[in-house]
Amino acid sequence: MESGFIAPLERLVEQFRRLPGIGYKTAVRLAFHMLEQPKEKAQEFASAVLEAKERIRFCKICQNISEHELCPICEDPGRDESLICVVEHSKDVSAIERVKEYRGKYHVLGGLISPMDGIGPADLKIAELLDRLKGDEVKELILATNPSVEGEATALYLSKLAKPLGVRVTRLAYGLPVGGELEFADEVTLSRAIEGRKEL
Amino acid sequence: MESGFIAPLERLVEQFRRLPGIGYKTAVRLAFHMLEQPKEKAQEFASAVLEAKERIRFCKICQNISEHELCPICEDPGRDESLICVVEHSKDVSAIERVKEYRGKYHVLGGLISPMDGIGPADLKIAELLDRLKGDEVKELILATNPSVEGEATALYLSKLAKPLGVRVTRLAYGLPVGGELEFADEVTLSRAIEGRKEL
Repeated sequence: MESGFIAPLERLVEQFRRLPGIGYKTAVRLAFHMLEQPKEKAQEFASAVLEAKERIRFCKICQNISEHELCPICEDPGRDESLICVVEHSKDVSAIERVKEYRGKYHVLGGLISPMDGIGPADLKIAELLDRLKGDEVKELILATNPSVEGEATALYLSKLAKPLGVRVTRLAYGLPVGGELEFADEVTLSRAIEGRKEL
Repeated sequence: MESGFIAPLERLVEQFRRLPGIGYKTAVRLAFHMLEQPKEKAQEFASAVLEAKERIRFCKICQNISEHELCPICEDPGRDESLICVVEHSKDVSAIERVKEYRGKYHVLGGLISPMDGIGPADLKIAELLDRLKGDEVKELILATNPSVEGEATALYLSKLAKPLGVRVTRLAYGLPVGGELEFADEVTLSRAIEGRKEL
């Protein structure tokens, strides 16, 4: 789109536009907002971006983002080492941690198996996961990948690898979201909720 | 909100959250997106922010953002100097320029008179506008501030200052948005559209 903006502004708009979920109009709004800020605010913003990229690396054990060689969860002796919850991204770890109920460890795959996008098992941190299953320590693997086609396929793939190692493999429950309304649930969710019904 | 993110990530989320229209969840998504980018992409982003702040200043004449002392519009001898379109922000200049119909000059106020927010005439580039009206050059001032209470008040204020200087003062037309539907127009717009009706 020809914007008629001067070059540095155009470049800033373009950069904002590359962010997920940010369209052209929002990018323009954000860029102008940045111009209206005092210089120090813009510098703070830019250095937060650079610092995050420089200081954040991946935990040697669970592949979660970390400031140090090991992440705080892997270093915590109070967490149950016999349980590993397998997730796609670091943000899924944060989501589960916010519930404050799970006391086991994690493993971050860094993606899902997706032949359409050219992502195979070798592109994910699966070898690192299997390494962790070699000892007798781990008793259960909770597969907490997304309830999507790729999430399902990845969970199935991992369960086939892990079961022969004598590890119990579980998957998060499907069903109606709490607080949701039955009439708005999609057919697949509803069918899974019926399938997974529990005796009262 | 307690996020449980490691510090550099938390700071990045906080920075994204300060942008207008970006809530907590979007800020988290954007921050993780930035972490997933290669380092060069994050650096490009950060330097676009810094460069925009460093290289962009305000045109000496019209107060529009500019890379040089004068903006391309003020420097263009092909633009009609007898017409000045007064707008709130630089983005309004871009909006009008995209229409490719207006061939006069601009004046960017940098805000609107708003006693509620403590913004008075002295906080805007009004003295600079009056300076431009001193010669005989300018014949018409088009007041293109937003159709809001503050935009109206600012337009009224400017018209009282400009009229005694022998300048024709006009305001953008109110009416139905083209392509809109009459039944969805609000009462004020509809009443203005009736008031401003034209003979066919």
